[in-house]
Amino acid sequence: MNSFGRIFRIHIFGESHGESVGLTIDGCPAGLSLSVEDFLADIERRKGGAKGTTPRKEDDLPIFKSGLFNNKTTGAPITILFENNNTRSTDYAKQRSFPRPGHADFVASKKYGGHEDYRGGGHFSGRLTVCLVAAGVIAKKLLGQVKVESKILEIGGEPDIEKGLQKAIDAKDTIGGIVECRVAGLPIGLGEPFFDSAESVISHAVFAIPAVRGIEFGTGFEAARMFGSVHNDAIENAAGKTVTNHAGGIVGGITNGNELVFRIAIKPTSSTPKEQQTLNWETGEVDTFSVKGRHDLCIALRVPVVLEAVTAFVLADLLMLENRINRIV
Amino acid sequence: MNSFGRIFRIHIFGESHGESVGLTIDGCPAGLSLSVEDFLADIERRKGGAKGTTPRKEDDLPIFKSGLFNNKTTGAPITILFENNNTRSTDYAKQRSFPRPGHADFVASKKYGGHEDYRGGGHFSGRLTVCLVAAGVIAKKLLGQVKVESKILEIGGEPDIEKGLQKAIDAKDTIGGIVECRVAGLPIGLGEPFFDSAESVISHAVFAIPAVRGIEFGTGFEAARMFGSVHNDAIENAAGKTVTNHAGGIVGGITNGNELVFRIAIKPTSSTPKEQQTLNWETGEVDTFSVKGRHDLCIALRVPVVLEAVTAFVLADLLMLENRINRIV
Amino acid sequence: MNSFGRIFRIHIFGESHGESVGLTIDGCPAGLSLSVEDFLADIERRKGGAKGTTPRKEDDLPIFKSGLFNNKTTGAPITILFENNNTRSTDYAKQRSFPRPGHADFVASKKYGGHEDYRGGGHFSGRLTVCLVAAGVIAKKLLGQVKVESKILEIGGEPDIEKGLQKAIDAKDTIGGIVECRVAGLPIGLGEPFFDSAESVISHAVFAIPAVRGIEFGTGFEAARMFGSVHNDAIENAAGKTVTNHAGGIVGGITNGNELVFRIAIKPTSSTPKEQQTLNWETGEVDTFSVKGRHDLCIALRVPVVLEAVTAFVLADLLMLENRINRIV
Amino acid sequence: MNSFGRIFRIHIFGESHGESVGLTIDGCPAGLSLSVEDFLADIERRKGGAKGTTPRKEDDLPIFKSGLFNNKTTGAPITILFENNNTRSTDYAKQRSFPRPGHADFVASKKYGGHEDYRGGGHFSGRLTVCLVAAGVIAKKLLGQVKVESKILEIGGEPDIEKGLQKAIDAKDTIGGIVECRVAGLPIGLGEPFFDSAESVISHAVFAIPAVRGIEFGTGFEAARMFGSVHNDAIENAAGKTVTNHAGGIVGGITNGNELVFRIAIKPTSSTPKEQQTLNWETGEVDTFSVKGRHDLCIALRVPVVLEAVTAFVLADLLMLENRINRIV
Repeated sequence: MNSFGRIFRIHIFGESHGESVGLTIDGCPAGLSLSVEDFLADIERRKGGAKGTTPRKEDDLPIFKSGLFNNKTTGAPITILFENNNTRSTDYAKQRSFPRPGHADFVASKKYGGHEDYRGGGHFSGRLTVCLVAAGVIAKKLLGQVKVESKILEIGGEPDIEKGLQKAIDAKDTIGGIVECRVAGLPIGLGEPFFDSAESVISHAVFAIPAVRGIEFGTGFEAARMFGSVHNDAIENAAGKTVTNHAGGIVGGITNGNELVFRIAIKPTSSTPKEQQTLNWETGEVDTFSVKGRHDLCIALRVPVVLEAVTAFVLADLLMLENRINRIV
Repeated sequence: MNSFGRIFRIHIFGESHGESVGLTIDGCPAGLSLSVEDFLADIERRKGGAKGTTPRKEDDLPIFKSGLFNNKTTGAPITILFENNNTRSTDYAKQRSFPRPGHADFVASKKYGGHEDYRGGGHFSGRLTVCLVAAGVIAKKLLGQVKVESKILEIGGEPDIEKGLQKAIDAKDTIGGIVECRVAGLPIGLGEPFFDSAESVISHAVFAIPAVRGIEFGTGFEAARMFGSVHNDAIENAAGKTVTNHAGGIVGGITNGNELVFRIAIKPTSSTPKEQQTLNWETGEVDTFSVKGRHDLCIALRVPVVLEAVTAFVLADLLMLENRINRIV
Repeated sequence: MNSFGRIFRIHIFGESHGESVGLTIDGCPAGLSLSVEDFLADIERRKGGAKGTTPRKEDDLPIFKSGLFNNKTTGAPITILFENNNTRSTDYAKQRSFPRPGHADFVASKKYGGHEDYRGGGHFSGRLTVCLVAAGVIAKKLLGQVKVESKILEIGGEPDIEKGLQKAIDAKDTIGGIVECRVAGLPIGLGEPFFDSAESVISHAVFAIPAVRGIEFGTGFEAARMFGSVHNDAIENAAGKTVTNHAGGIVGGITNGNELVFRIAIKPTSSTPKEQQTLNWETGEVDTFSVKGRHDLCIALRVPVVLEAVTAFVLADLLMLENRINRIV
Repeated sequence: MNSFGRIFRIHIFGESHGESVGLTIDGCPAGLSLSVEDFLADIERRKGGAKGTTPRKEDDLPIFKSGLFNNKTTGAPITILFENNNTRSTDYAKQRSFPRPGHADFVASKKYGGHEDYRGGGHFSGRLTVCLVAAGVIAKKLLGQVKVESKILEIGGEPDIEKGLQKAIDAKDTIGGIVECRVAGLPIGLGEPFFDSAESVISHAVFAIPAVRGIEFGTGFEAARMFGSVHNDAIENAAGKTVTNHAGGIVGGITNGNELVFRIAIKPTSSTPKEQQTLNWETGEVDTFSVKGRHDLCIALRVPVVLEAVTAFVLADLLMLENRINRIV
């Protein structure tokens, strides 16, 4: 269940305060050149440290454990580890008596009978998104002329991102945002009519990113307020180019060769600096609680590269399913 | 790829103007009583015929082909057919030179090399949602005290549904809408941390419903504009009940025992009565086109029962994965 | 669980004495011409009626329910039914108090809590092999120059099949046999190193055929008695042709371009005409029992075409996984 | 494709002469105590060093990377590494011009376009069976009263194992053998009627063990020579105990509560000390070749613990599918 993909398959593992987090990719074509350098740019984009993000920083150099030989993929499973060096578990031990609101603490305890590694969210931590980013780096190399790009559209309702972020800083609170993803260069024909529609598989993977609360394709929720004659995208040539792109590049569950466009809603970071009233497990009573540890004021700021990564490996899998990426590259 | 589920698995097949559409359910527990009558109410809810919906009506009585014995499920695969009696394929043959905007005609032709059954949308037709509804009927019986309910929230931006619909009638156009689903009685612990989060599997299945353009859980896109201290749902007791339910019943990808709440955006029916300018395949030029056939002014009106059904079979599968539905009932 | 395949996927359903049995194939390439005539030869080979086989005969004409248009596959799921016309359920009702030795009666009753359709073995019946044969017909058309052929090697230990069969007739008993399958024209590279080795996926599917008790590839069990210098197949040219073929065409789980060769052991038909001592469910005591109904003296006689079919659809799937069969043919 | 299981899922990765090999288990219940000590006995059983086995010895202490907390499983994926310390890759570089007969060298080169890690067989190496053994250790702890035991039945056709081994030593050659597995304590009802029959899933996993050429259940190939009245196992009581156990504990694809019994054929180690005539890739001509490196004279000697392990994790998965192992133990 910690797996995604039918041909190009991602498995992730690890905990926030364990020794490392990591991933295995099975089904990656052989012959793809791969080096530590390939990962640096996207991993840097994901890191905290900038205004509004966590001061926890990790080196996050990928450690290749299998699947590479002479700096190329071999066709065998690729396992990559990222060490956790910069952890402060004592911060979390103190908080154990409060299942943090908005976090998985409570549900994890129930689901796993109290056996979960609760330190820093354990396996539920956003820390594991470094594994998604790593899978995305490899997938992007496979995509060739298919280009995936994500950016923040708004923070706290403000298209001016600095302004949105300042609202949170002023309020000494955390805040949400909206992130968009666009993909150019996709062929016609990815996806299936019903259960494996392109939207189905993209949204399946995208909701693996922590803090995502919604996804919409093309005009999305706005489409619910439109007339059909306005919403329909007229086809203007035999290649399938449409005059408008309200569909966001997917019709009938299948990519139509126009730009793929979708947006996701990111909730405000659950670990707000504000005091909260919530259950104290030890007393069984509602009590005042405030979060310790180092956190992002606006986790949405760090999402674009993760969203690109997830989108890239979904598309790599769909392309492989349609024989559009060779088994040896 | 026309399949969904890990234990309780749905397969659908058929075409709008073929002899029948149908489904197979594999992994359904043995001993569940099942009769034609069980299906009538939900199938009736899905039917066209009311204001704003297609005048095409089918009897849609389920024909059981396997998996039942003495009116109970046997544990073997259940296959059900629905005959297509009320088809007018000649309507569609005339339209073949125009790939209908907003429909799968164009992408299907590219994906399947022109071999697709194009009559009435073929396998892409909303006709197949009767199969989803049938699967939902069976799933709902398995859910017991878990209650799934969907309703229309707005049509064309109007919470007054009649008013929204009238906008379309007045404009001689089609129109979209928003549908909400709520589920009461779910246990804590369904779903997985990342790739099989409850949102992931629900959205995967929901985007199999034709015309869905977006999905949001709890506060959804509004969460992107909220502060963390406001968005967080304080836990108020040891059973996990929260004071608010902004999360919509899912935290960290796992159900938290509160009501599951999500909404979907339905685009306006692509087959608008209005004339459209679009590609004529025969001439290779943009040309005037108007849709023939019988269609819904607002397909959103028929979606609630389909959304309930899809939600029900996703949840049945998640419950079975957690050993919460027995193999013999 | 009644499914097989990753790209070219087979689902089977139905019961021996239900209205019909059937199958759905999902993932079949579009554009493959398909007619009732394509099925006749292999379905005829499977039929009973010859010496040593059951007198129950069915017409077994495939009834296409979906996935075909203008006599070609469309790329959508193909559903085919076979009606059960020639059933005599009363034969079986009488036998219900005895779980027949060697049959699934006992385990089915325990697994499904007594809800199983027990008539003629229900869903466990060899009747469902007609669905496997149908899938094989389609797969064989996809295989092109890859030729799958099965034949009986021995009956009751006798390479002279007539002689082996006569042993059973003389003994008024049923008897087992060995069936071999050979495939010429396979490319190098099908299968995966470990869990999806070519032997793994073939044996997985082959043990779906009722009455199979063993499978061996190349020299098989004889290999356990050989020296390495004798068993090794020396490679004689750059195309990978080997001097001997003790490996049966698979090395390291991967096809090596030489002939694929494997054999299966078929147990004697469980429904022997002889009286047996076994449990009477009603009395809870061991009692004398003799089988009613129409049965095969030697079910192995009808296995070759089933084995070919299963092998063909496994290979079609492996070829599609390696991009060696196009999505449109 | 390097994965097995539906609930209790094993993924393996690594290469013989890479830095390490490893596995991830997803879906393991939470709360299972696990320590390095749990692994020592079975890992010791797998090691070389005894008469007839390779002198290459590894410490093979499991290094836990994820999924454990306070010495118990957490419910999150468990990743375990085994370091490769005792490698001599130079042995293999010299041999690269010869694709070793009986090894995957030739097919790997074709399948992966020459990008495979060929040192010591790379990802195809028997070295990865340590990962299978590790998965088996965990699975066995889950099985409770279900006991899995394997032993060697014969070497080189001799039930006296020492004698069989001496044949190989005398002949300065390698030799094959037969290994049996027996499982006591299984419940009735594991497995599915057709494609996921108990034999199907067991054989699927068993053929992942390198050098397996055949598998047979119960009387196996001998059944092909038996009469039905002899082969049938009469049921003697309401618990399903049978007088004989020719079926080997599986009827109709479903476990029947009697002992599970099956045997596998292991071919002679491909790396024989004898000179062989085979293709030289550099010259394109057949040439004299002799194997370097450290190898087993009889790899069958090391198979029993691997076979137990594979059987154990297959059964753990089947038990979890039937709700017979809890999600929290």
